[in-house]
Amino acid sequence: MVSGVSLGQLATRFGLVLRGDPDVIVDRVATLSGAGPGAVSFLANAKYRQTLASTQASAVVLEADDLEGCPSAALISKYPYADYARIAACLYPTPTAEPGIHPSAVIDASAQVAATAAIGPQVVIGAGVLIGERVQIGAGCVLEDGVSVGADTRLAPRVTVYRQVRIGARCVLQAGCVLGADGFGIAKDAGAWIKVPQVGTVVVGDDVEIGANTTIDRGAIEDTVIEDDVRLDNQIQVGHNVRIGAHTAIAACVGISGSTTIGKHCMIAGAVGIAGHLEITDHVVVLGLSMVSRSLTQPGVYASGMPVSDAAEWRRIVARLRHIDGLTDRVRALEGVVEAAQAVMK
Amino acid sequence: MVSGVSLGQLATRFGLVLRGDPDVIVDRVATLSGAGPGAVSFLANAKYRQTLASTQASAVVLEADDLEGCPSAALISKYPYADYARIAACLYPTPTAEPGIHPSAVIDASAQVAATAAIGPQVVIGAGVLIGERVQIGAGCVLEDGVSVGADTRLAPRVTVYRQVRIGARCVLQAGCVLGADGFGIAKDAGAWIKVPQVGTVVVGDDVEIGANTTIDRGAIEDTVIEDDVRLDNQIQVGHNVRIGAHTAIAACVGISGSTTIGKHCMIAGAVGIAGHLEITDHVVVLGLSMVSRSLTQPGVYASGMPVSDAAEWRRIVARLRHIDGLTDRVRALEGVVEAAQAVMK
Amino acid sequence: MVSGVSLGQLATRFGLVLRGDPDVIVDRVATLSGAGPGAVSFLANAKYRQTLASTQASAVVLEADDLEGCPSAALISKYPYADYARIAACLYPTPTAEPGIHPSAVIDASAQVAATAAIGPQVVIGAGVLIGERVQIGAGCVLEDGVSVGADTRLAPRVTVYRQVRIGARCVLQAGCVLGADGFGIAKDAGAWIKVPQVGTVVVGDDVEIGANTTIDRGAIEDTVIEDDVRLDNQIQVGHNVRIGAHTAIAACVGISGSTTIGKHCMIAGAVGIAGHLEITDHVVVLGLSMVSRSLTQPGVYASGMPVSDAAEWRRIVARLRHIDGLTDRVRALEGVVEAAQAVMK
Repeated sequence: MVSGVSLGQLATRFGLVLRGDPDVIVDRVATLSGAGPGAVSFLANAKYRQTLASTQASAVVLEADDLEGCPSAALISKYPYADYARIAACLYPTPTAEPGIHPSAVIDASAQVAATAAIGPQVVIGAGVLIGERVQIGAGCVLEDGVSVGADTRLAPRVTVYRQVRIGARCVLQAGCVLGADGFGIAKDAGAWIKVPQVGTVVVGDDVEIGANTTIDRGAIEDTVIEDDVRLDNQIQVGHNVRIGAHTAIAACVGISGSTTIGKHCMIAGAVGIAGHLEITDHVVVLGLSMVSRSLTQPGVYASGMPVSDAAEWRRIVARLRHIDGLTDRVRALEGVVEAAQAVMK
Repeated sequence: MVSGVSLGQLATRFGLVLRGDPDVIVDRVATLSGAGPGAVSFLANAKYRQTLASTQASAVVLEADDLEGCPSAALISKYPYADYARIAACLYPTPTAEPGIHPSAVIDASAQVAATAAIGPQVVIGAGVLIGERVQIGAGCVLEDGVSVGADTRLAPRVTVYRQVRIGARCVLQAGCVLGADGFGIAKDAGAWIKVPQVGTVVVGDDVEIGANTTIDRGAIEDTVIEDDVRLDNQIQVGHNVRIGAHTAIAACVGISGSTTIGKHCMIAGAVGIAGHLEITDHVVVLGLSMVSRSLTQPGVYASGMPVSDAAEWRRIVARLRHIDGLTDRVRALEGVVEAAQAVMK
Repeated sequence: MVSGVSLGQLATRFGLVLRGDPDVIVDRVATLSGAGPGAVSFLANAKYRQTLASTQASAVVLEADDLEGCPSAALISKYPYADYARIAACLYPTPTAEPGIHPSAVIDASAQVAATAAIGPQVVIGAGVLIGERVQIGAGCVLEDGVSVGADTRLAPRVTVYRQVRIGARCVLQAGCVLGADGFGIAKDAGAWIKVPQVGTVVVGDDVEIGANTTIDRGAIEDTVIEDDVRLDNQIQVGHNVRIGAHTAIAACVGISGSTTIGKHCMIAGAVGIAGHLEITDHVVVLGLSMVSRSLTQPGVYASGMPVSDAAEWRRIVARLRHIDGLTDRVRALEGVVEAAQAVMK
């Protein structure tokens, strides 16, 4: 946390219009309801508009339309959540480790580590690894032979990066994620399985975030590719040869089977399952717990998640659904009878 | 494993009524069907009642109602599974490491580690960390700056705890779990994403168990809170700002989106998905693979999981379901015709 | 990668019929569309048959029936994917570490490590551990007391193996997987939970692959068992006392609840959830995102995954489905009216 910044400085730095005293100092962020003097808050979700009137924040980042209901100073923004993010980043700079290599780290002699990089304790770095400027490698990470990590990328503790994986600049990898494990390639032969060598790798673009315990498999032959500015939440599984387009965001617990391509600017909600060998076009939104088992060639919003009912009611629904085939036949039979009757009546 | 304990001792220590010879020694636990002499077993699930008659166990923990069918000595209990758990804990004491700090551990000089704590090999402990009495930190764990761990808490190997996370007393954290990674906070700005700083932390109460590879994200602004006696299975994802109420148990593979509150004494079965910004009241039970996409304000049992059918039959059901809208219209049309005909008949 | 091998050598070594020049050298694998001279490719999926005509590969592994459409040399195989796997394994031998123990590893004096084994940096090996011939233990792995690992098994970095777990020969364990964490055993007692000691272990057969961040819990009383040649993808959860039969393959993100038995030669697709205490017979196939909540006693293909629709359409379907009970009643009522009318008409 920094010691504080004036509203005037924030307005100038981020190009916002300030309503209020430019000399007021803020030194932290808070929710509208949790804020007190010294805190800056934001309004970006209509759901919280009713809380605005009673906020004790020193300043609120909001859209011009919400200005009237704001009791405090205001920083007027077209994209309040984005400008809030910038202000928060200014008040809470990312903790950075001191450059240098911790003595407990095991670094192969052929690895090239930038002098400005910080390599934490118990890190293992293999042969030929390239570590860019200002990179941070958290405690206990393992980077196998031939890995490269672009400038300003940060690895949290205990990340595993298999051989030859290439990671771009300004990425953030959370703890426990695994990049480049073997894809699930097995071939049946006389009743037993043979492992199919996975000879591709993983290529991660710039500005990518990868969540805790997320796994991205290396390609079977060609590479698995995560394009620039992709944002992956925790516990996502990305199969071999998947390609995820730039600016796509994927929430936690999603599974993407092998050789599927997801377009740019897509948003995939939590726990969605996507089958293999599909093409999902740009600007597709998939709602939570849905199953994508065919290619989606048109932008749009897709869903198949089933919301909970009372369990007893749900059991009845399921029982009825199992007979929907028969029910449809019964309706057709009734239609036939009615039609015949109507014909007679004429 | 201890060298054995007499049934009389068990009855006394746990307040159970013994039917049988108090001097019989038991030294291990077993299932009813797998038990032999020297083993103590239990009956807590009606499903296994038929196995009771043929058990070779030296003693069985059971309810008074099941006594008649029991061929062996019996320890009569109101809660046989709970009393079995106590007896098993007595026969199989938790393996404990010797107090002290392994020489390969890297401990910041400002950390305070109780003399009775055991810090395993390759552990990394940051600045200002507080480690309570008799805490065990398994090999390869990473505790970032400012973390605190209450007395008698045990971390299995390779647990990651991000900065400032607070963990209570008598907790058990299984391998690979990650506490305090950044929540999934991203803001759209001109077609690209900006990372929203996650400035809250995670607060874990007392007597909490956290399963292997489970992830609990730090709060965006305020904290993510896991109350006392919460039990989390493996591979659960807990989003930022979630609160889980005391005594709630959650099975494996559940995902909970950000800012949702789950009440006390809830039971969430495996692979349930819970959307964000919801309120789930106390004493809610959600059955497996369900989707909770609205707040649940009433205690009760909820479900939306769809049981498997034969695949060909399921395809027909899905095809019919897609036309349920039309089917409903057809039924309405038939009702109209029939009603009109009935009006004419009158 | 090796320096290359002739088609004649491949045909001889793997018992394939070669059509073409036996002296042509190949040194890599490629997809049909991505191949150039020097690459060997394969055709095993009808979907890619149209690509065959234009491939630039030096040779293609295919079935005799596809020979006519192949513009290049061909290696004729009954199981092209399996023979491709063998050829790829020959061109891309598994990277092997040098035998020996890295000086940063912490090995208990009572552990027995074969001289041909390779123990990576920062590894921790407990008391009484047995490491077989040519075993590879990746950086940062933790093997607790009493673990045994059979010959030629490879552990990627950062694998955790709890006490007493036994792993067979020729297995592959990917990064971040956890074997032998406590199963989710809790007993309710006066409104609070008691932890039930998990005194079994995990027994893994030969030729098993376990994916990244997959978790396999130790048994509550008896053992969790993974039989020979089982193939588990990433982020799978296997509960305590589960048994998975030989040659069964399970895709990513599957969850299997405690005490369930899965037969031999089963195939479980991604994100399937399987309830506890079930019996799944041999040769069962379960399609993706299905819920198995009853025992499956007949071989066959099962499903309950719901494919996505347009979200607005899906909302209508869900709303109608909620009234399927009423709809069925309305159809029955109509049938009653029609039947009565028909009776009158006669």
